[in-house]
Amino acid sequence: MNIELALRMCEASVRQAGREGALVSVAVVDAGGHLVAFQRMDGAEIAGVTLAPGKAYTAVAHRMTTADLARLVRPGGELYGLPGDRYVCFGGGVPLRHPGEERRVAGAVGVSGGTVAQDVACAEAAAALWDGVQLFQKRDI
Amino acid sequence: MNIELALRMCEASVRQAGREGALVSVAVVDAGGHLVAFQRMDGAEIAGVTLAPGKAYTAVAHRMTTADLARLVRPGGELYGLPGDRYVCFGGGVPLRHPGEERRVAGAVGVSGGTVAQDVACAEAAAALWDGVQLFQKRDI
Amino acid sequence: MNIELALRMCEASVRQAGREGALVSVAVVDAGGHLVAFQRMDGAEIAGVTLAPGKAYTAVAHRMTTADLARLVRPGGELYGLPGDRYVCFGGGVPLRHPGEERRVAGAVGVSGGTVAQDVACAEAAAALWDGVQLFQKRDI
Amino acid sequence: MNIELALRMCEASVRQAGREGALVSVAVVDAGGHLVAFQRMDGAEIAGVTLAPGKAYTAVAHRMTTADLARLVRPGGELYGLPGDRYVCFGGGVPLRHPGEERRVAGAVGVSGGTVAQDVACAEAAAALWDGVQLFQKRDI
Repeated sequence: MNIELALRMCEASVRQAGREGALVSVAVVDAGGHLVAFQRMDGAEIAGVTLAPGKAYTAVAHRMTTADLARLVRPGGELYGLPGDRYVCFGGGVPLRHPGEERRVAGAVGVSGGTVAQDVACAEAAAALWDGVQLFQKRDI
Repeated sequence: MNIELALRMCEASVRQAGREGALVSVAVVDAGGHLVAFQRMDGAEIAGVTLAPGKAYTAVAHRMTTADLARLVRPGGELYGLPGDRYVCFGGGVPLRHPGEERRVAGAVGVSGGTVAQDVACAEAAAALWDGVQLFQKRDI
Repeated sequence: MNIELALRMCEASVRQAGREGALVSVAVVDAGGHLVAFQRMDGAEIAGVTLAPGKAYTAVAHRMTTADLARLVRPGGELYGLPGDRYVCFGGGVPLRHPGEERRVAGAVGVSGGTVAQDVACAEAAAALWDGVQLFQKRDI
Repeated sequence: MNIELALRMCEASVRQAGREGALVSVAVVDAGGHLVAFQRMDGAEIAGVTLAPGKAYTAVAHRMTTADLARLVRPGGELYGLPGDRYVCFGGGVPLRHPGEERRVAGAVGVSGGTVAQDVACAEAAAALWDGVQLFQKRDI
């Protein structure tokens, strides 16, 4: 992860939020789950200050989307009762991977402020940018 | 939000609590979720010291009533597992808005100490006062 | 402590703040250190939301003014290293007593937002009101 | 505060860090102390994730630079013992004001990662941008 790419991912999420008619916060974290970039759109709710980085952290910590994790932490789910103040276990957090390294994450993006479906769409827009850059770098080198 | 209006809202909640036969704490917070005024009725439980400001903060942070939020955080709900020490996700917190600015909150009121239904009624009494003042200011200008 | 008297003490502090040209938050707590009333003047800093109740709590917890406590917690002081997230150990917190019960506190007032000297003056204005009411009640009965 | 200006302030701090040869994190918060934008330069330490927003929050909460606050919280200082998990009381946090409203803050910038002197220089570079924008808006109207 680097700041330049993190900023571009934030912009991609914000653009998608514009299409969705949502006001969101976006966070990009590195492989350690630590914040690299954060942006809160004008008028976006203050809960996003905690939730967007929380979703990104959770996606790194569990190496899966927070939407997938949401299914596991439900009553009856495999991870029901998952503890942790910093975990946010509903959609909007998406892990970022280097091609061919499926078991490692390079970071994650987290989005909060819209409906869960909107948050997911915004996070996926950022992740698509990440994937594109990875593809381009692979081809080049 | 200003202190004069916040005090009047506290009084409106306390009056409603009198009608309900409830003993409550009332908190009014600004757009940043920070406390402006707080009152705990004689004999009201000490839990209200945390819960009333917590409900008001939550209503600002998520820009919705904590009663609506309660439905979303249930098992099966969209925000099930919503974390956060400061969140109180059951009825009694009501966001306050300026007319025509539906997506922004100007603050919130939180009430705790009675049944949830009583807390909601007391918070709505304060919110009604807020709405009345907004209406009056609109007419004047 | 009761809510009516707590509100009157808040007003006394706010009036004194007006004289001092300060913008303050005022908190009144009961014998358990639990908030009874809180008011933040328009424009007063948000630190007061924590510090005013903190000073009042500390004054109850240690049964002395936070100005006196400040001397004890200095390097070399008897209570140097006093722990506790909730303690605020500089001037602005004043315990409230019933006449003739010097070792018990009935509550406390805490003020924050001005200089320490201004905060102390505002807290003492509230405490003076308390003392006046105690005197009056004694004479009557 | 708005996101566009917050991003420009982050860039101003990062440019100054380049001149200083420092690797920093920059945070911009609104009047409620809530994060609007955050950027961590490549190679900047992860402590900045907490410290930069913490300095910005502290500058809003106490309406002064954290460098000034540092003097007050020293042993013998007026605010010695200032508590609070979120407070960061050494240089690098600078409050932002609208012209003619000296007692209110509109937000703050916090920088962490270099020496305190470097952090202060980076925060002041962002604050200078803010002041320039305020001046420009004044002239226009």
